[in-house]
Amino acid sequence: MSFRIEHDTIGEIKVPADKYWAAQTERSRQNFPVGKEKMPIEVIVAFAHLKKATAIVNSDLGKLSPVKKDAIVFACEKIIKRELDDHFPLVVWQTGSGTQSNMNVNEVVSYVANEYLKDQGSDEIVHPNDDVNKSQSSNDTYPTAMYVALSQAVEHQLLPALEKLHGTFEEKQEQFKDIIKIGRTHLQDATPLTLGQEISGWSYMLEKSKEIINQSKKQLSNLAIGGTAVGTGINAHPEFGSRVADQLSEQTGLPFISSPNKFHALTSYDEVVYVHGSLKALAADLMKIANDVRWLASGPRAGLAEIEIPANEPGSSIMPGKVNPTQSEMLTMVVAQVFGNDTAVGFGASQGNFELNVFKPVILYNTLQSIYLLADGMNSFNDNCAAGIEPIQENIDKYLNNSLMLVTALNPHIGYENAAKIAKNAHDKGITLKESALDSGLLTEEQYDKWIKPEDMIHSKE
Amino acid sequence: MSFRIEHDTIGEIKVPADKYWAAQTERSRQNFPVGKEKMPIEVIVAFAHLKKATAIVNSDLGKLSPVKKDAIVFACEKIIKRELDDHFPLVVWQTGSGTQSNMNVNEVVSYVANEYLKDQGSDEIVHPNDDVNKSQSSNDTYPTAMYVALSQAVEHQLLPALEKLHGTFEEKQEQFKDIIKIGRTHLQDATPLTLGQEISGWSYMLEKSKEIINQSKKQLSNLAIGGTAVGTGINAHPEFGSRVADQLSEQTGLPFISSPNKFHALTSYDEVVYVHGSLKALAADLMKIANDVRWLASGPRAGLAEIEIPANEPGSSIMPGKVNPTQSEMLTMVVAQVFGNDTAVGFGASQGNFELNVFKPVILYNTLQSIYLLADGMNSFNDNCAAGIEPIQENIDKYLNNSLMLVTALNPHIGYENAAKIAKNAHDKGITLKESALDSGLLTEEQYDKWIKPEDMIHSKE
Amino acid sequence: MSFRIEHDTIGEIKVPADKYWAAQTERSRQNFPVGKEKMPIEVIVAFAHLKKATAIVNSDLGKLSPVKKDAIVFACEKIIKRELDDHFPLVVWQTGSGTQSNMNVNEVVSYVANEYLKDQGSDEIVHPNDDVNKSQSSNDTYPTAMYVALSQAVEHQLLPALEKLHGTFEEKQEQFKDIIKIGRTHLQDATPLTLGQEISGWSYMLEKSKEIINQSKKQLSNLAIGGTAVGTGINAHPEFGSRVADQLSEQTGLPFISSPNKFHALTSYDEVVYVHGSLKALAADLMKIANDVRWLASGPRAGLAEIEIPANEPGSSIMPGKVNPTQSEMLTMVVAQVFGNDTAVGFGASQGNFELNVFKPVILYNTLQSIYLLADGMNSFNDNCAAGIEPIQENIDKYLNNSLMLVTALNPHIGYENAAKIAKNAHDKGITLKESALDSGLLTEEQYDKWIKPEDMIHSKE
Amino acid sequence: MSFRIEHDTIGEIKVPADKYWAAQTERSRQNFPVGKEKMPIEVIVAFAHLKKATAIVNSDLGKLSPVKKDAIVFACEKIIKRELDDHFPLVVWQTGSGTQSNMNVNEVVSYVANEYLKDQGSDEIVHPNDDVNKSQSSNDTYPTAMYVALSQAVEHQLLPALEKLHGTFEEKQEQFKDIIKIGRTHLQDATPLTLGQEISGWSYMLEKSKEIINQSKKQLSNLAIGGTAVGTGINAHPEFGSRVADQLSEQTGLPFISSPNKFHALTSYDEVVYVHGSLKALAADLMKIANDVRWLASGPRAGLAEIEIPANEPGSSIMPGKVNPTQSEMLTMVVAQVFGNDTAVGFGASQGNFELNVFKPVILYNTLQSIYLLADGMNSFNDNCAAGIEPIQENIDKYLNNSLMLVTALNPHIGYENAAKIAKNAHDKGITLKESALDSGLLTEEQYDKWIKPEDMIHSKE
Repeated sequence: MSFRIEHDTIGEIKVPADKYWAAQTERSRQNFPVGKEKMPIEVIVAFAHLKKATAIVNSDLGKLSPVKKDAIVFACEKIIKRELDDHFPLVVWQTGSGTQSNMNVNEVVSYVANEYLKDQGSDEIVHPNDDVNKSQSSNDTYPTAMYVALSQAVEHQLLPALEKLHGTFEEKQEQFKDIIKIGRTHLQDATPLTLGQEISGWSYMLEKSKEIINQSKKQLSNLAIGGTAVGTGINAHPEFGSRVADQLSEQTGLPFISSPNKFHALTSYDEVVYVHGSLKALAADLMKIANDVRWLASGPRAGLAEIEIPANEPGSSIMPGKVNPTQSEMLTMVVAQVFGNDTAVGFGASQGNFELNVFKPVILYNTLQSIYLLADGMNSFNDNCAAGIEPIQENIDKYLNNSLMLVTALNPHIGYENAAKIAKNAHDKGITLKESALDSGLLTEEQYDKWIKPEDMIHSKE
Repeated sequence: MSFRIEHDTIGEIKVPADKYWAAQTERSRQNFPVGKEKMPIEVIVAFAHLKKATAIVNSDLGKLSPVKKDAIVFACEKIIKRELDDHFPLVVWQTGSGTQSNMNVNEVVSYVANEYLKDQGSDEIVHPNDDVNKSQSSNDTYPTAMYVALSQAVEHQLLPALEKLHGTFEEKQEQFKDIIKIGRTHLQDATPLTLGQEISGWSYMLEKSKEIINQSKKQLSNLAIGGTAVGTGINAHPEFGSRVADQLSEQTGLPFISSPNKFHALTSYDEVVYVHGSLKALAADLMKIANDVRWLASGPRAGLAEIEIPANEPGSSIMPGKVNPTQSEMLTMVVAQVFGNDTAVGFGASQGNFELNVFKPVILYNTLQSIYLLADGMNSFNDNCAAGIEPIQENIDKYLNNSLMLVTALNPHIGYENAAKIAKNAHDKGITLKESALDSGLLTEEQYDKWIKPEDMIHSKE
Repeated sequence: MSFRIEHDTIGEIKVPADKYWAAQTERSRQNFPVGKEKMPIEVIVAFAHLKKATAIVNSDLGKLSPVKKDAIVFACEKIIKRELDDHFPLVVWQTGSGTQSNMNVNEVVSYVANEYLKDQGSDEIVHPNDDVNKSQSSNDTYPTAMYVALSQAVEHQLLPALEKLHGTFEEKQEQFKDIIKIGRTHLQDATPLTLGQEISGWSYMLEKSKEIINQSKKQLSNLAIGGTAVGTGINAHPEFGSRVADQLSEQTGLPFISSPNKFHALTSYDEVVYVHGSLKALAADLMKIANDVRWLASGPRAGLAEIEIPANEPGSSIMPGKVNPTQSEMLTMVVAQVFGNDTAVGFGASQGNFELNVFKPVILYNTLQSIYLLADGMNSFNDNCAAGIEPIQENIDKYLNNSLMLVTALNPHIGYENAAKIAKNAHDKGITLKESALDSGLLTEEQYDKWIKPEDMIHSKE
Repeated sequence: MSFRIEHDTIGEIKVPADKYWAAQTERSRQNFPVGKEKMPIEVIVAFAHLKKATAIVNSDLGKLSPVKKDAIVFACEKIIKRELDDHFPLVVWQTGSGTQSNMNVNEVVSYVANEYLKDQGSDEIVHPNDDVNKSQSSNDTYPTAMYVALSQAVEHQLLPALEKLHGTFEEKQEQFKDIIKIGRTHLQDATPLTLGQEISGWSYMLEKSKEIINQSKKQLSNLAIGGTAVGTGINAHPEFGSRVADQLSEQTGLPFISSPNKFHALTSYDEVVYVHGSLKALAADLMKIANDVRWLASGPRAGLAEIEIPANEPGSSIMPGKVNPTQSEMLTMVVAQVFGNDTAVGFGASQGNFELNVFKPVILYNTLQSIYLLADGMNSFNDNCAAGIEPIQENIDKYLNNSLMLVTALNPHIGYENAAKIAKNAHDKGITLKESALDSGLLTEEQYDKWIKPEDMIHSKE
């Protein structure tokens, strides 16, 4: 393996010859041989957007030559196009400010920019700190890149997946709006509803989740950029933060602003905790939906079997012909992970001291994982399960017709206690509700047939 | 001990003669000898508001006689006035729908209402199910009472406490706006800022928390009432839900609406998970603030000792004269509890099945505890600690003047690498920054004095 | 209300005349108006055991007069007998070392001891710090009281409840050992097992939980006592810690020892985190068991309905005759709480600094709540549910006979792929497994009857 | 790209021509495009150990021809040697029983085995289900592979790292045993101890963690193998489970046994929850240690600065010469992750139903990540930080000599209240403790010098 010598303020160090990073990246690579979890490429790409934006703004403010700016922009765009993924070797488990990943980006950008300048015949030299990092600190760039990466993931991954699954349930709810079935509360038989109504509950959960995620995601617009080292903005121009935010908005199509208080922006991730709370709310809903789906599809002969879901693969390595609700299983495992991540994010966010919180990479890693897993999980669950849900009419009818809880419709006519006696008598004797009702002498057959109509029990009445 | 005999659909049961509850409450009391945690009185009071509202609406809709309505309203108001606390003996650890607490309220209200009617010489009799619970189910009343109780606690306990502490920090931030001090990142000396700026970070955390809690709390407006047993509204009038929501808004002064989808309202507590996420965000901020306060106040002689906090009590049973940051300790223990509660709430919310979630009491209990602890904790921390924070100027000045990180101001003039050499040299030799700077030959004394001014390093510059 | 004046090193303060506490307790009461959660009486009682033990040991070591010792022991025994509960007004949310509760005990003990001495005509005076707290600090007494209280709760509450429920399942497993039923994996029909075998799984979960709790509880034997202020044992005799541990063992019948490293004992609660991990393991098992019970009991007509559980109370305020699995609901809510508590305990335990961890009360509160809720929850679930489980043979037989998964027994004879074809054909055509098997031409009726015997499928075979 | 056609009981499917997996793996790959987290290679390797062991046992029991056995063993060994990593493409987010990864192994093993047989000129054909999976189900093999993988990771990764860091602290504790320094409780100055004693607390935390991990890890010895589909052992020989456990013990050098209750083994992961509880206890300790280290090293001029830690890399992209406690930051982020993982593991373990828990991959993934991160984190922290800790004697002495808490030594002589007055007076007037003591008139200079000796305050005394 061949090397070149790079240096930083600590001294010289050997770096693999074919890699564009320099001394500080290499030190981190050697000093943190921890885990397999790379700093997510999404945050590297967000950094590239940011370094492009800062170069443009520094140039506009007369702090960076147009030549250097062009070179930096050239390099950033290569990162954004994902042509340089191999040059970002660092892991999540590094310094808690993300300084080393900021420097990794600074180093790779300056390397590529300098190659570009050489090609152009320029004799200007881009310096990782003095140029690429100009007017910046890791302390404001890392959280800026975090919020850009998270915002993009919410917008381009999570919300489309949520809308797709929501759309599927809205279709199903319309499609099955006339299928009357037994309701279940406490897992016990209850009064009827339609399958469409039942699915409308799932549908509305996703609508609600969409609403709260759309609400909470706005908190990710507040960028730290402009705060530099401790939040005061030392070494930056007063307009730097807001200009960069505007430039990033233009580049990404998302509405970023410069945070009104940079001391907050460097030390508090209340906004991320809040956003992850909205992800956890979605996760709780998905758990409920995935569980309902697998229970309604349980059987085929010794379960509830009210719906059929697609049989995508053999279910068992030993039981031939078995088909399992595997998409529900995948989705509920995703939920478990999101719940775990929520704990990690809250913990990390609580541990800031003075002018800095040094749990940023772990906060970013967990939140981004949650977003991706929820997005992928909903897409897969939608395509491979939800879209194929079909009712099993025979079983639905059987349960509805046998139910004792239709007795509830008698409350307004004969009172709760009399109605209870009829239901209990039917249960004890194993007879139908109608037989028991007539036995009781409290109502006539005509009254029974008029009062006990499932189709009248699925809505309120004047 | 003397008893009376009560009955329900299961049969007869003995009830303490001096208590107003009846058979179903008594059964729960006997069947759930679990824990010491009573169903919070706040949710009982919210139930009383609800039963009053439903009686008025049922009467308006012609479903309940005015006489019964008046009697029910009379009883509810006694509960609201907290005159009947002893008659609600049930614990959190009961049926997961809260049915038994709904029945406890129904039973006590009907008992008191019937006493009232007897006093009035009326021969009408109020029945717990047929009258007090008319047009209702536990499945829609319990979540309605939850949301009313939580909304009131957020509004009347949490937000005022948050605003008070926020106000204190805003004052301190103004008061200390000219005290320049060393900044600290990674716990290491960094560039300076003012004490006012540092506190503005805390202040803005609370402002941000207020913003997100105000945003999230709106989700608690959506009431389940009108959904009855499974969400279809069986046995209720179509206008029942929205009329009760209006009536509750009038009674409480808070803006409630009838949830647009009752299947959601009975099974999903995504809204509470989301609200608790905003509480966790606040908790994470309070952890950071309380930690900063105790660290800045650490000492008196072997700590940072940049601020002084009130000495409220002897700190040690063995070390005479010791004073400890006990309010920070209380507040950070509250944070630990809120983090735990967040786990419990998310878990409970994820476990709904079909038409019902049966983890309601545990969700309510934890969320209400979080709100009360955060509110009380902030009030106590404010009054007994934050309001008394004072700077220790001598130490602040000493740290500032010794700092090596003022070197950062040289970056734009001599570059990051040269600046680093100066700082490292000063550190290695134990000399001042100025001495090291002049040693380096990179700048003159005049330049040093012009460039290194702490008062110029606490803001951005053109 | 009448008062008396007390003083401490801060100054004078008014204390309610009828209460035995003094200045430091009163200050805490006034300075921490936070929450409703009292410092658990169990830890106060443990403190009384400890103060009794320390008085005896101090006296044995010649540090305390026999007269004072007797007076202190007299006072401690009144606390242990729960005659003085009203004199411990402090909440959990106080100083994180528990100093104020230690002083509350010191103050009440000295008050009662001094009354006793006065009655005896003695003119000795017991001082809260110099006598009751002699050779001690809050920093070693609070964790000692914690471990004593937790050990007692595990021993006298948790383990007996666990054994009782375990015993019930062992009986049921024997009782139902010949009832062959369908197995379910992924909620889908699987190969058969006996109801006894299914219950043996629950039974073994409790046995395993008992094993690990018995293993982990030993960690609670290591007492901090003897470490005093920072772990060095300043102001204590070298034998003090081990003598007090022996004395406590004698008093409580539990095997305590003096921790080998007091610096650990004051700052690390890894032992409690570990113990709570064993409680969480039990909670996870109880969730599974309670869920299985309610699912197997689901119905009565639209669920699985393989078992019947006791009908303890009316289940619904609107649906007459409904009976719900309320004990499962209670128990699963307890599980949610234990999961939340586990998060709080881990958080608190991680936040020690230097010579002290100041999250002790919140660690104690959550762990003790978990133990009590699990104990009460299992007792209630056992008595009101598990003990009354009965099979519904008719449904069990119906599911078994309809099952397609009996086909698994054909694997060794005709291979997995052929067996799968038979199962799928039966499912597609809605015919029995036997009909489908014979259709396939792969085996004869005689072979089918020989190979497909549920009673042969419930165990391994040579 | 070129493909070949494979089939399973669902039908035909195209598989990349250069990959050894077959139809079921390919279906999973297509049906679960979720996340980037591959099924950990460690569990694949454990599966290979298991498939080798089962082949040997099946052959010994006369169920598998020696020729097939040899071929299977050949294939498994290639997997164990990590020559086939590219053939295991599946992600964690698949079916919750891990069936698809079991089949992935079965398919790759049979492919390679059949190539081997072809090479040998044999006409026997190994079938993934009938041969490689013989006497097995995913339901018993996946948890078996989990426990093998986890046991190996604990043994070969975690414990050695723990011991190494423990060893370092034991050395340091010896090395610094005579350096007397100020103690700190509540972050406030307290009585003195030696730096060696302080480090002995960390040391003992790791000893304790080692003890509890060694205790809890035994739970991972209980293998599910032999339970097959639902725990009854259908299609397996009665000795199969224990023979495979013995064979695995021989292959791995770790002591495995066949679980005494297979119904438990398929549905309950209480053992893993418990083990993860011991990992969380270690994590809580590491948080405390890493925090102490960075606080003691805080400064260089405005912090505590009692110790120096290695300067491994430039700390800041903007502040030249800054050096940060980055290894502490890495380690505390690992702790945050372990805390999150603990939540996910507990959740997953609680969600079993009937004869199966379908959260196995998420339980495995989180537990294995925790083990690896803790191991790598401790190794890195040890090598790059702990091993280089050195005291800064000058600061240590300054703090000790200024301290007011030495007053504690006066308690036995003049009583707690008098001692408190002396300390407060010194604090108020900013004078030394000695000056204040003499001011008080309560003791002579000679007494002061005799009683107040830091070297006498670091241990108990008769």
